[in-house]
Amino acid sequence: MDKKSATNQQWGGRFSEATDAFVQRFTASVDFDQRLYAHDIQGSIAHATMLAKVGVLTDEERDQIITGLETIRDEIEQGIFAWSVELEDVHMNIEARLTQLIGITGKKLHTGRSRNDQVATDIRLYLRDEIDQIAAELTRLQTGLLDLAEREADTILPGFTHLQTAQPVTFGHHMLAWFEMLTRDKGRLLDCRTRLNQSPLGAAALAGTSYPIDRALSAELLGFSKATENSLDSVSDRDFAIEFCAFASLLMTHLSRASEELVIWTSAQFDFIQLPDRFCTGSSIMPQKKNPDVPELVRGKSGRVNGHLIALLTLMKSQPLAYNKDNQEDKEPLFDAVDTVKDCLRAFADMVPALITNKSPMLAAAKRGYATATDLADYLVRKGVAFRDAHEIVGRSVAFGIEQNKDLGELSLAELQQFSDQIDQDVFEVLTLEGSVAARDHLGGTAPNQVRQAVARARTMLTKEN
Amino acid sequence: MDKKSATNQQWGGRFSEATDAFVQRFTASVDFDQRLYAHDIQGSIAHATMLAKVGVLTDEERDQIITGLETIRDEIEQGIFAWSVELEDVHMNIEARLTQLIGITGKKLHTGRSRNDQVATDIRLYLRDEIDQIAAELTRLQTGLLDLAEREADTILPGFTHLQTAQPVTFGHHMLAWFEMLTRDKGRLLDCRTRLNQSPLGAAALAGTSYPIDRALSAELLGFSKATENSLDSVSDRDFAIEFCAFASLLMTHLSRASEELVIWTSAQFDFIQLPDRFCTGSSIMPQKKNPDVPELVRGKSGRVNGHLIALLTLMKSQPLAYNKDNQEDKEPLFDAVDTVKDCLRAFADMVPALITNKSPMLAAAKRGYATATDLADYLVRKGVAFRDAHEIVGRSVAFGIEQNKDLGELSLAELQQFSDQIDQDVFEVLTLEGSVAARDHLGGTAPNQVRQAVARARTMLTKEN
Amino acid sequence: MDKKSATNQQWGGRFSEATDAFVQRFTASVDFDQRLYAHDIQGSIAHATMLAKVGVLTDEERDQIITGLETIRDEIEQGIFAWSVELEDVHMNIEARLTQLIGITGKKLHTGRSRNDQVATDIRLYLRDEIDQIAAELTRLQTGLLDLAEREADTILPGFTHLQTAQPVTFGHHMLAWFEMLTRDKGRLLDCRTRLNQSPLGAAALAGTSYPIDRALSAELLGFSKATENSLDSVSDRDFAIEFCAFASLLMTHLSRASEELVIWTSAQFDFIQLPDRFCTGSSIMPQKKNPDVPELVRGKSGRVNGHLIALLTLMKSQPLAYNKDNQEDKEPLFDAVDTVKDCLRAFADMVPALITNKSPMLAAAKRGYATATDLADYLVRKGVAFRDAHEIVGRSVAFGIEQNKDLGELSLAELQQFSDQIDQDVFEVLTLEGSVAARDHLGGTAPNQVRQAVARARTMLTKEN
Amino acid sequence: MDKKSATNQQWGGRFSEATDAFVQRFTASVDFDQRLYAHDIQGSIAHATMLAKVGVLTDEERDQIITGLETIRDEIEQGIFAWSVELEDVHMNIEARLTQLIGITGKKLHTGRSRNDQVATDIRLYLRDEIDQIAAELTRLQTGLLDLAEREADTILPGFTHLQTAQPVTFGHHMLAWFEMLTRDKGRLLDCRTRLNQSPLGAAALAGTSYPIDRALSAELLGFSKATENSLDSVSDRDFAIEFCAFASLLMTHLSRASEELVIWTSAQFDFIQLPDRFCTGSSIMPQKKNPDVPELVRGKSGRVNGHLIALLTLMKSQPLAYNKDNQEDKEPLFDAVDTVKDCLRAFADMVPALITNKSPMLAAAKRGYATATDLADYLVRKGVAFRDAHEIVGRSVAFGIEQNKDLGELSLAELQQFSDQIDQDVFEVLTLEGSVAARDHLGGTAPNQVRQAVARARTMLTKEN
Repeated sequence: MDKKSATNQQWGGRFSEATDAFVQRFTASVDFDQRLYAHDIQGSIAHATMLAKVGVLTDEERDQIITGLETIRDEIEQGIFAWSVELEDVHMNIEARLTQLIGITGKKLHTGRSRNDQVATDIRLYLRDEIDQIAAELTRLQTGLLDLAEREADTILPGFTHLQTAQPVTFGHHMLAWFEMLTRDKGRLLDCRTRLNQSPLGAAALAGTSYPIDRALSAELLGFSKATENSLDSVSDRDFAIEFCAFASLLMTHLSRASEELVIWTSAQFDFIQLPDRFCTGSSIMPQKKNPDVPELVRGKSGRVNGHLIALLTLMKSQPLAYNKDNQEDKEPLFDAVDTVKDCLRAFADMVPALITNKSPMLAAAKRGYATATDLADYLVRKGVAFRDAHEIVGRSVAFGIEQNKDLGELSLAELQQFSDQIDQDVFEVLTLEGSVAARDHLGGTAPNQVRQAVARARTMLTKEN
Repeated sequence: MDKKSATNQQWGGRFSEATDAFVQRFTASVDFDQRLYAHDIQGSIAHATMLAKVGVLTDEERDQIITGLETIRDEIEQGIFAWSVELEDVHMNIEARLTQLIGITGKKLHTGRSRNDQVATDIRLYLRDEIDQIAAELTRLQTGLLDLAEREADTILPGFTHLQTAQPVTFGHHMLAWFEMLTRDKGRLLDCRTRLNQSPLGAAALAGTSYPIDRALSAELLGFSKATENSLDSVSDRDFAIEFCAFASLLMTHLSRASEELVIWTSAQFDFIQLPDRFCTGSSIMPQKKNPDVPELVRGKSGRVNGHLIALLTLMKSQPLAYNKDNQEDKEPLFDAVDTVKDCLRAFADMVPALITNKSPMLAAAKRGYATATDLADYLVRKGVAFRDAHEIVGRSVAFGIEQNKDLGELSLAELQQFSDQIDQDVFEVLTLEGSVAARDHLGGTAPNQVRQAVARARTMLTKEN
Repeated sequence: MDKKSATNQQWGGRFSEATDAFVQRFTASVDFDQRLYAHDIQGSIAHATMLAKVGVLTDEERDQIITGLETIRDEIEQGIFAWSVELEDVHMNIEARLTQLIGITGKKLHTGRSRNDQVATDIRLYLRDEIDQIAAELTRLQTGLLDLAEREADTILPGFTHLQTAQPVTFGHHMLAWFEMLTRDKGRLLDCRTRLNQSPLGAAALAGTSYPIDRALSAELLGFSKATENSLDSVSDRDFAIEFCAFASLLMTHLSRASEELVIWTSAQFDFIQLPDRFCTGSSIMPQKKNPDVPELVRGKSGRVNGHLIALLTLMKSQPLAYNKDNQEDKEPLFDAVDTVKDCLRAFADMVPALITNKSPMLAAAKRGYATATDLADYLVRKGVAFRDAHEIVGRSVAFGIEQNKDLGELSLAELQQFSDQIDQDVFEVLTLEGSVAARDHLGGTAPNQVRQAVARARTMLTKEN
Repeated sequence: MDKKSATNQQWGGRFSEATDAFVQRFTASVDFDQRLYAHDIQGSIAHATMLAKVGVLTDEERDQIITGLETIRDEIEQGIFAWSVELEDVHMNIEARLTQLIGITGKKLHTGRSRNDQVATDIRLYLRDEIDQIAAELTRLQTGLLDLAEREADTILPGFTHLQTAQPVTFGHHMLAWFEMLTRDKGRLLDCRTRLNQSPLGAAALAGTSYPIDRALSAELLGFSKATENSLDSVSDRDFAIEFCAFASLLMTHLSRASEELVIWTSAQFDFIQLPDRFCTGSSIMPQKKNPDVPELVRGKSGRVNGHLIALLTLMKSQPLAYNKDNQEDKEPLFDAVDTVKDCLRAFADMVPALITNKSPMLAAAKRGYATATDLADYLVRKGVAFRDAHEIVGRSVAFGIEQNKDLGELSLAELQQFSDQIDQDVFEVLTLEGSVAARDHLGGTAPNQVRQAVARARTMLTKEN
């Protein structure tokens, strides 16, 4: 995208036909890129300020431009700005209006830049703002998880592998697993922010400009950490959009996993939790139903974000430098990924503090599943039984329990001693669910004690982030 | 998505909280599914007609419903219909308005169906219509290619492998290669149409209904080839959307290849063709430029379609039957894939007939590249020279030509005879570009004669399609 | 990929450096394309036969070549063939060995073809064979589903939407939903087969050849329906690989959905089915566990096939015609997609007939979930109660049932009559699960009667396929 | 994946059937996970050392185990280890051999861990090592680019937008654009390394263990920065594999762009560079050809890496915690992404220093394209001509040049002055290509001076990394 005028007239003698109406609509971007207006104006104000500083504009011209741009921002925000598809994109719409408002000085704003570096600047400014909002929403969700984890540090449910009961865990511990996923997501988000926070302004069409611009100054005015190092790269780089979508795909994958668990847990068969009604819908044809719509929709939305990631990777594959029209296709996937992530995080951040645990079905499920079999084996090994023998003893005990329809902790001492004379009264401490979880008392383990310590560490970490 | 009322009130005593405003907006689909209105009404009219036929509605009720629906269609098309996000989706918006217009009879329309089979019907009707439009546009583009191929059946350009000159081909032959890709695409499109053209109506929520419905009748009224075989599958199946996107991804891949060639061919270095100005844009900062925007944009749009395909595959992965809220996410990718394909085909169908070939640069390029080296080898083999020896002779001739800065056809007989005494005056027939292409005179070969025959066969095929 | 000799020597004077060892390994394909050996030989035999027919080879040369190729096939199958990475690919390995075996005549085999059309032919032959095997395995799985559906036509379980109990369905009906998915998959597979079943042989490097070849003959000898129409397209087309992967992605998506259901159904909480032990693994650390490994692995393998589809679409995006080295990357994704599909179908076809339904937990689950609420509403509507009123009555009945911890069918007539005096003794016919499913007695409905009819129709269809 | 014995016998009484041979092959991973052997042994040695430290093993047992493991490592590296598919995976193969070698003490190694945390540890150790190698290769390629940029700091070629000549740039500047892409890639790679460098060991099956393990100690012994925070997350997390593949997809996208440029630049039409012969192949059928195989193959390999990214994202979508068998599918995509990235970087790092620029065709191309039109406009603006007027003047000058078949710098002063009397003799300074590039003399601009400064800054940065 080169600096281009609103009509073919300006391209002058090189062109002999007017763009037809379909082609104009097909190639225009103003329908979707107008959402960049605030960042476009922000970038232009910094550019004008810099141009005045280096003497390309007079102070008066700069002030006229800034006042004009602020008027335009107001017009847009009041909904009275007349967007025009003939003017193709947000940049030309604003520039044309500026010239209308302040005359020929409006045209001087574009000195020493091109739409190629202008749009690259706009998207970075936009994405940086959105990242900050997303980071805040992530923190709100993380805080909700910590509160819930603390509240449910002692609540026991079965831990699953292969969706089969494996060992008892605490609900607080499970919530902290979700927390950890989000912690990595936030790290990736902030790494992305750091990498994108450089100013491409001044790269112009692709090679830089012959005006005596001060790129460090415009970078500073826009809060960028520095100016980018290479003009060709600056106008052709869309890494930030792809890196953001990669972050978003992983985040949405995590939310899809949590959603899947919520859907399974709210089934009548599991009945581990209740979602507040406002996150569900009913059915007038089946009045007994309460559908977990919000987690289902979040789970489904992981699809569109994976799609956007692939859209952008496909887009950039094999593009020669520097700018090609293909790149206009970068915006819609990015915008939708941003919106999706914000909405899904908001939905989860609202929902998590309101989750209601059904402690009794959870406990019953954990009891039914021979979840403490591992604990019995460990008990025997500690008593000196060889590992291999211990496992055989446990296997036979479980088989007996299944036959008797009793969990291990419900067998009598005599019944247990059939399988090993190393078993003593103290076995019942490890066969209770409470004993089992309490015993996993090391860093990262499921013991309530560890859950509380992990919550405390996590709170400290979140505090330090701000 | 079960049949659901507009407000929580109808779900009645099961719910104790109102959906909050954000959740309502987050879970509503009316913003994007309202484009299904015409097909929703079409489906409802057929359903009402069937219900009257089997005696569930009176003829008077049916007529009231149909009149009401037609009124609503008019309201929507005149832009005076009041869409409401509280009513969640296109179906509830229309049904609520129908009840407003005709009273309680409006509610009877939903007898024996559910939103689950209703939406499945709507999308199939919608997609079938779009497929028909896309097939017509494909045919228009194919016809344009045949015309161009015929016009340029004798035009010679270098055929490339590895973007290196390989052998001379005719431009008409190259256009027919594009034609073949589109022929396969159309086959896939029509196969997709055949598979989707079955009526899910009557599957109801998931199990069918206890009303005495006649599914074959409603299928027939809607132009479906038959009713679907299984109700659970009918409400959970989204294969048609994925199969359409797979078609679209391949089509867009083909258009991306053609676009890449157009972009390369319009570079100053190749200069093989000119695009009409109306498919290009200029640059006011670089007045010498004429950018091939339309092919670049089409090339870029292959990304979004690949993205939609992945979005839908991710969406459906691991979903248990029957309907889950996730499925609401099926529409936006499908709609955008449809729009993208239609726009890109239109752009190409408009552009292809207007392509201007630059015959002289093409010919010059073919001459420069030793493109007839293979012909010399074949000539020698026909003269009885062993394959291996022939290649050595050609290799030495080319090396000599490079040294002399002459193409093979520009070497004298004496010069050529240095490398083999089997070479005679008749060698120049095969060393000319015209001789080379004319010699490839078998089915599928690049000879002008074959190109014309292929065009004729293709025209017959297109005629038979209609 | 042009016809290329084994060593740089043959490219002769144009080259001044030997390929280095790393580059040789990096660019060679013999490690993975040797699996095409049988199809390469099959194609070469047909090519030689055609060349003899048109007089390019003598009958004696043809016979020498065929005997030589058959010897090579034996060597490969006995594991005594010496594959060489220096010879780059399967084609050069076989050709070099042929020349070793039969002398210079071996070199004549390559007359009138190139590796570009040769490899395109090989892959099509390979894929056609694999498709036939996959189709057979699909049929085996479909047959297993029909047997199971018939066996369990009367077995009742809850039908779910949103993983919440919706309405009772029959297990046979559910299995037929899986069957329908596979029917569409098979349709796509056979459409892919039809489209790929054309012979590219004779397209040579890209433009055809000046030898008097008979492409229709070699097509016929190889069982292709015809020769392809355009030589440029023939060497650059990889649609068949992408179309196959699109088929495979949809099939694997279907299997992932079935697998998800098997995993959920084998959880202790659902306990709807048992998988035979041989499809599961246990855990020595948790001896109580029986993990549904096979469905989990199939579910996971949907990922790799989606990946291969994207790999191929990315590969082909923006490639100018005709052949580029990029295309060497088409094989590994295709091969792995073929293998994955075959393995997963085999696993399912083995597993499905061995599924054991736990009828009592299924029935209990269906009873617990107010699954017949819709039937009560329909009952009331048939008695003349207005739709809206009927729903209110059902809503209040369900609320009462929840309070009393009774399903609707367990309430007494008096209890039900509290909510409507239209309710009579005959209500209990519709409130039983058996009554509910039996009432959905139309095409595609869940009634045992319909399931049996659907099985019969499906058996007829499968029979006709063969 | 739970700790599981080699044969069904050990799962004991719970199982009544042997796994069948196909299922065993289908579910086994040893064919591909054996490449983790060294990291598996490394992890086991650290685990044994920790167990001895906390008193679970005696020092003697620890020493026996370590000696045994080292013997096994030797056996594997000498190729005399007997891998067994019955033993399913690398872990069981090594453990079974250890017990063979040292008796029952071998079995004690598995105390306080499970295969779930073991495999998570192995992959992290493996990937960390590979990342370090990849980072080194990236640096080698970057260094090559800096050397080339410095060497070609003054070499002029046309800078393109839309593959149309836009403005002259320097080849060194272009190489630095590639350098910048790789700098961001390296940043992402190292961020990935930081995030994965935590020890999951001790998470056991999913909940931690009741043994008094010291996770911080085993983390330290393995060079991890810390132990992970949550056991459930530790065994279900595969973020590192996905984050690595996201890095790899972006890197390969960058290499595909550079490859595309190399392919275009080596075409006869552009003729900007020459690739050394050893990165190319020829064609025996077309002896004139020199195909850029290596860049083409790298470009094509971007497909498989995008595919692996999608494979892993699809794999993890919707998986409930903690471990599911699906996760076994994480390895092959990751391994292949690692290998692909290493090979492609190696190919580029070898190739870049050997690129030969064809300065004269580059210069000629830049001269032909009116590449200094922007400079003329800027010149006029600096002379006080209004922006809009300046553009009109340039447009008319270019049109005149096209007519005369002369570039702007080839027009006489008198000819130029036809269009504006502001044009003076000094105009020729800006109309030369050298003047144009030299004028873009600000941070990131294309001036040779800036290129040299950028190279110097980059060298300093690379030095600091080590």
